[in-house]
Amino acid sequence: MEYMNQALAQAKIAFDRDEVPVGAIVVDTQTNKIIAIAHNLCEELNDPTAHAELLAIRTACNIIGSNKLPYCDLYVTLEPCPMCATAISFARIRRLYFASYDLKSGGVEHGPKIFSSSSIHHIPEIYGGIKESEAGLLMKDFFQQKRSIFNKSDIKK
Amino acid sequence: MEYMNQALAQAKIAFDRDEVPVGAIVVDTQTNKIIAIAHNLCEELNDPTAHAELLAIRTACNIIGSNKLPYCDLYVTLEPCPMCATAISFARIRRLYFASYDLKSGGVEHGPKIFSSSSIHHIPEIYGGIKESEAGLLMKDFFQQKRSIFNKSDIKK
Repeated sequence: MEYMNQALAQAKIAFDRDEVPVGAIVVDTQTNKIIAIAHNLCEELNDPTAHAELLAIRTACNIIGSNKLPYCDLYVTLEPCPMCATAISFARIRRLYFASYDLKSGGVEHGPKIFSSSSIHHIPEIYGGIKESEAGLLMKDFFQQKRSIFNKSDIKK
Repeated sequence: MEYMNQALAQAKIAFDRDEVPVGAIVVDTQTNKIIAIAHNLCEELNDPTAHAELLAIRTACNIIGSNKLPYCDLYVTLEPCPMCATAISFARIRRLYFASYDLKSGGVEHGPKIFSSSSIHHIPEIYGGIKESEAGLLMKDFFQQKRSIFNKSDIKK
């Protein structure tokens, strides 16, 4: 639970920076230490691939010195999209823990269900719904705020 | 065809650097200029996400100063995997041209068929099979060489 709290703290930082509030951390299970923390940075970095999971995986790989992380677990506040789910497979992540389910853009339990594809090379153990309501509320607040700003600017026109 | 030749030249550089031989370029269709060239760098960078397409998209976004590339086309020597296909959608790439089909790990015509998912936000125009045999031969040579090295080291044991 503590690791997901850390991921949620990252999601809150993303919220305050006007990024979609998703946070992720990578834990090295051999030492039980967090080796990467990240949150979405797509807007700030002008990078559509800068999802929390991808940034955390890239940082962890850099620290470990390998493009495989078989002893690492990933904690993320939202069900990974198909891009991130595939990257999780490439990185050979041991366990994936996520908070909210993403009915619209998720790629694990929804959409193309990446880990159910016959062509997938590695499937992590998957645990969804951890601290789901807290993470979900953050997302809801974010998009409500976005819609409110959009509607106000629409009225001005 | 010239743009795919440039992508193939990148794939050959990857081959020589012992990376899976895939090359990609991004063309700004407003100027008809190549704004990003890349090849796989997963081994060198210790980054499982360093596929040619992702690197090319990130470079192009950085140059354009936006996380969307609606006026850009992507040329890549192999059918994109599900990670790259999703990134292509996020980046709002206008047209995707690819060479070889990837029966084993592709995510466009094979596997989870990302652009056929009901949850996909943007689908580019897709043209597959351009200079297919040249790109396919490069991949075949690469993996034959890998198997040969693997077998030789196996005999030594």
